[in-house]
Amino acid sequence: METVYTPAHALHAPAREFLDGQLIPYFESPSRAEIIRAAVEAAGLGAIVPPHDFGLDPILAVHDAGYIDYLQTVYAAWLADGRDPGGVYPDTFLTRHFARRARPPAKPGARAGYYNFDLSAVVVEGTWAAAYASAQVGLTAAAKVAAGARSAFGLCRPPGHHAHADMSGGYCFLNNVAIAAEWLRRKGGAGRVAILDIDFHHGNGTQHLFYAREDVLFVSLHADPDRQYPYFMGYVDETGAGGGLGFTRNYPLPLGCDEAQYLAALDAACVTIGAYRPEALLVSLGVDTFAGDPLGDFALPSQAYGRIGARLAELGAPTVFIMEGGYAIRELGENVTSLLRGFEMPA
Amino acid sequence: METVYTPAHALHAPAREFLDGQLIPYFESPSRAEIIRAAVEAAGLGAIVPPHDFGLDPILAVHDAGYIDYLQTVYAAWLADGRDPGGVYPDTFLTRHFARRARPPAKPGARAGYYNFDLSAVVVEGTWAAAYASAQVGLTAAAKVAAGARSAFGLCRPPGHHAHADMSGGYCFLNNVAIAAEWLRRKGGAGRVAILDIDFHHGNGTQHLFYAREDVLFVSLHADPDRQYPYFMGYVDETGAGGGLGFTRNYPLPLGCDEAQYLAALDAACVTIGAYRPEALLVSLGVDTFAGDPLGDFALPSQAYGRIGARLAELGAPTVFIMEGGYAIRELGENVTSLLRGFEMPA
Repeated sequence: METVYTPAHALHAPAREFLDGQLIPYFESPSRAEIIRAAVEAAGLGAIVPPHDFGLDPILAVHDAGYIDYLQTVYAAWLADGRDPGGVYPDTFLTRHFARRARPPAKPGARAGYYNFDLSAVVVEGTWAAAYASAQVGLTAAAKVAAGARSAFGLCRPPGHHAHADMSGGYCFLNNVAIAAEWLRRKGGAGRVAILDIDFHHGNGTQHLFYAREDVLFVSLHADPDRQYPYFMGYVDETGAGGGLGFTRNYPLPLGCDEAQYLAALDAACVTIGAYRPEALLVSLGVDTFAGDPLGDFALPSQAYGRIGARLAELGAPTVFIMEGGYAIRELGENVTSLLRGFEMPA
Repeated sequence: METVYTPAHALHAPAREFLDGQLIPYFESPSRAEIIRAAVEAAGLGAIVPPHDFGLDPILAVHDAGYIDYLQTVYAAWLADGRDPGGVYPDTFLTRHFARRARPPAKPGARAGYYNFDLSAVVVEGTWAAAYASAQVGLTAAAKVAAGARSAFGLCRPPGHHAHADMSGGYCFLNNVAIAAEWLRRKGGAGRVAILDIDFHHGNGTQHLFYAREDVLFVSLHADPDRQYPYFMGYVDETGAGGGLGFTRNYPLPLGCDEAQYLAALDAACVTIGAYRPEALLVSLGVDTFAGDPLGDFALPSQAYGRIGARLAELGAPTVFIMEGGYAIRELGENVTSLLRGFEMPA
C-alpha cells in the first residue's frame, strides 16, 4: 500500500499544552509523524508519496468558512494583540448560557473561545499550513482508492477526528477523515461510505458531521466517554438523527480493555459495516489503544494490531487509512505498520 | 454603613491560574478582601460584623442542586482521581455540538467541563467553604437593608456576578448578588429589586439568572464584550426575554473610557433604575474600572469613585453593596471606600 506523507506537518509544532493543571510538552508532536514515516519505510510497506493539492473546495465542503478564516488568521491577530507567542488559547468558552451571536467577538482570545471546545488545539504560526497539508494527504489517499487501489495510507498530522465543522479540539483542526469521506461521496464515485474510528478517543467531530446522513456510516470503538475524553459524546445511545438514524454506532469500551474484548467489539463493528456494503471504507487509525499509551487506559499489546488489520481486510472494501492519535512514541511506528501489514497480508 | 466580613474567604486561595498561555499567580487573591477590610476600618466607615448563617436554602433558590454538589465534592474526587492538587481544571468544555446529557460524566475533569465556562474558577480544598461564606455575607448585608438600614456592604469574596445557576467562571462560584436579590424578593419583602453592576466586566451570570424576570431589573455598565471578557454576553441588544423583556439594560463602554464618559453612562443607568422605583437596590461593586487595574482597560481615576457613590445615593433606594472584582492591589482599598463614603456623605 502507498503511504501519502509530507514534511509540512512539522510546521505545526506548539511547544507546550495545558493539561491537568500544568504546562507540559505538546503530546501531539512532529516526531509522531516522522516515527511512523520511518517505520513505514523500514517495513517496506510500499512507496511513500507526496500529496496532490485539491485546493480549499473539499475542505469547505465540510468546514465553515468563518472557521477556516479563524485558522488562517488568528495567530497573526493574537500576536498583534500583544499575546503570548507560544500559541493561541481561548480566554473563555462559548458554553450553554451564552447566546450564539451571528459572528464571534473581535478579539483573538474570544474567537478562539468561539471555535474551540478545549485547550489542546493550540494554533501557532504554521498550524494552518500543516492542517491544510494534512487534509490534502487524506484526500490524496482517498483519491488513490477511488482510482482503484485496494488501500492507501494517509499519514495525516495534525489529526482530525475531533474537529467539528466549526470547532477545534483534541489536537485536531481539520477533520481529515470527514473531508476525505465527503470527497469520496461527491467526487470519488462512492455511493455509500463507511468510517470506522479505532482511535482510543471517540471521534466526536466525525460523528457530528455525518449524524443526520445515511450515505456515510460512522462506527466507533473507543474508551467509554463517561470515563475518558471527550466525555460529552460517544455514548451507545447516540445512533444518528433524522434520515441518519441508525447510521451512527458507538462501542464504548471499559478501563483496561484487553485484546479479546477489543477484537470482539471490532468484530461486532465489522458486522455492522459489512451489512452496510460500503463502496469505500475509511479507517480513523489511532494506536492510543496500546497498553503503554500515556493518554490511554486500554491494555492492547503490539501483537493485537496485526489482527485488527486482518479483521479489517476481511471486509473486502477499498480502504483508506487516515492517521489519528497514538502517543507511545517508542512503539508508535511498529503498532501502525503492524496494523497496515496485517491488512495487506493477513496471517 | 456596616460592613459584613468573614475571614473564611481566605479558605479559597488557588496558587495559580492559566491566563494568556502562562501559569501565573491567581489574581483573585485573599489579599484583596483583607486590603478592603483594612481600608474600611481605616476610613471609619462603620462596624465590621460577621455574617449570619442563612443555610443552603437561599443558595438553592438560585443555583442548581447538581452544581452545588459539584462545588462541594469535586476537589476530593479530583485528588482521588490522581490529579494535580493545585486545583481543578476542566479537561474539555461542554460546547455547542455536544449533547447535554441528563447528568455530567463521572470523572471530575469532565464534571468541571460541564460546570465551567473558563479556567479561572479553580476549585481547591477550601473553595466551597469560602463560596458558601461569601454568599452568607451578601445575604447578611441584604437582611440589614431589609430590616431598615439605608445601606450595607457585603465584603464578598470569592466574587459572584459571572456565576450562572449551574456554571462557574470568571473567578465566581456562587452568584452572591443574585442570591441576595432573590432573598430580598422572597423573604425580604421587596416587590421590585434592581441590580446595578458596575464591575468592569459584564455580569453574565446575574443577567442570565433574571433574564426573563420583571421583578428584578438588571442594569450593567461594563467593557464592550466585543473587546473584553466575557465576550459572549453583555451586548446592548440583550434586553430581556418573555415577561422580562425590557428589564435588562446593558451599557457597553469603549477602551480607555474616562470619568466623564463613565459618569454619563452611569447617569443614564440611574435614570433607568429610578424609573423602575426599586424597593431595594443591589450594587455589584467592582473597581476594576480603575485606570491602573491589570485586568481592565478603562481610565477612571481614584477620584471618580466618590462621585459614583454620590450618584448612587441620589437614587434614594435602600442599597446593598456586594463586592465583585478589582485587582489593582495598591488602590483597591481606597477606591472601594471612596465609593462607599461618597454614597454615605455626598460632597
